Amino acid sequence: MGEPPENFSMVWKGIYRSGFPARRNLPFLRTIGVRSVLCLCPEEYPDSSLAFFESNGIALIQHGMDGNKAPDDRTGAFMAPEIVARAIGVLLDESTHPVLIHCNQGKHRTGCLVGCLRKVQRWSSVATFEEYRRFAGAKARLVDLQFIELFDTATALQPPQRANSRPSGKLLAQSELSDGRQPPTARQAAASGPGATAAA
Amino acid sequence: MGEPPENFSMVWKGIYRSGFPARRNLPFLRTIGVRSVLCLCPEEYPDSSLAFFESNGIALIQHGMDGNKAPDDRTGAFMAPEIVARAIGVLLDESTHPVLIHCNQGKHRTGCLVGCLRKVQRWSSVATFEEYRRFAGAKARLVDLQFIELFDTATALQPPQRANSRPSGKLLAQSELSDGRQPPTARQAAASGPGATAAA
Repeated sequence: MGEPPENFSMVWKGIYRSGFPARRNLPFLRTIGVRSVLCLCPEEYPDSSLAFFESNGIALIQHGMDGNKAPDDRTGAFMAPEIVARAIGVLLDESTHPVLIHCNQGKHRTGCLVGCLRKVQRWSSVATFEEYRRFAGAKARLVDLQFIELFDTATALQPPQRANSRPSGKLLAQSELSDGRQPPTARQAAASGPGATAAA
Repeated sequence: MGEPPENFSMVWKGIYRSGFPARRNLPFLRTIGVRSVLCLCPEEYPDSSLAFFESNGIALIQHGMDGNKAPDDRTGAFMAPEIVARAIGVLLDESTHPVLIHCNQGKHRTGCLVGCLRKVQRWSSVATFEEYRRFAGAKARLVDLQFIELFDTATALQPPQRANSRPSGKLLAQSELSDGRQPPTARQAAASGPGATAAA
């Protein structure tokens, strides 16, 4: 039986999202042919999952960060836009596809990343925020919506920093078509910076 | 700018879902290359949308039905499993892809259809019901969950009734892989019955 991870969904061709995949969800990732896992948590990855990834040729790409906290939260961490930009670079690089984005619950960090991706795709804010709320439910955070609103998509569309990166024409074609304009550096795109580690 | 319809999401490769596409959402459907629209509402389709579909080569496939009503609702309509089975046949037929499923809000009828599709894909009930609730939110109906639970997937996997139907191997491959069993008649599948009308 297929047991997708919590909050699992398809984001776009070749891109999935979810909460942290539990051990019992790993076979499902194999059935959908996941080639890379983009983890947004800074913590070390469980050994048993690493072994599964390795034996199934799945690359682990970790761009770990803390989620946005409400302004009145004393621990007040905020997500780093440059890490989000790098994570978008991973998504734009078709050689990583099919890729699964996940954080812990698949609500906040994942929701922010997908929200910023929708900006790159030039989705309306209404649709972008609705999608964020669909996954965050009662745990929706205004700081996350603000983060998405303020995110500068130009930082996610820098020229490639890796020789073998392949920008996702399919993904960006949508935004180009939607208003007829060509995004400035999109076709050359797919920023991928330091912090990426491959388990396989 | 991309303006997806309300409750828009990707269901699977080549399958999207949403609420009723408003006029302002039609250009978005073109950008994602929609080839067919599977409408679950029984009402007549707006003329302006029909004209748009026709000029963009989009086929309208209508399997209209009323949604499930709560048992204490005097008007008490219930969805017809055989119409849902036919609608699944449309989804399994790759020649319709990319296809957009929609009803009015993209919550109940669409949620039931996608839930039944997840059964065909052999997803766990937990994941299937979680997905239903994600789109229905506060409007979730227990009768819908019950409908999904009682739906007999065998009815959706009848041999094809159309010469040119092409079953979606990609879609069913997942369920085959997930527990190693071959679904009985899946590979020959894609039931498509009366009620289908093509606008283009």
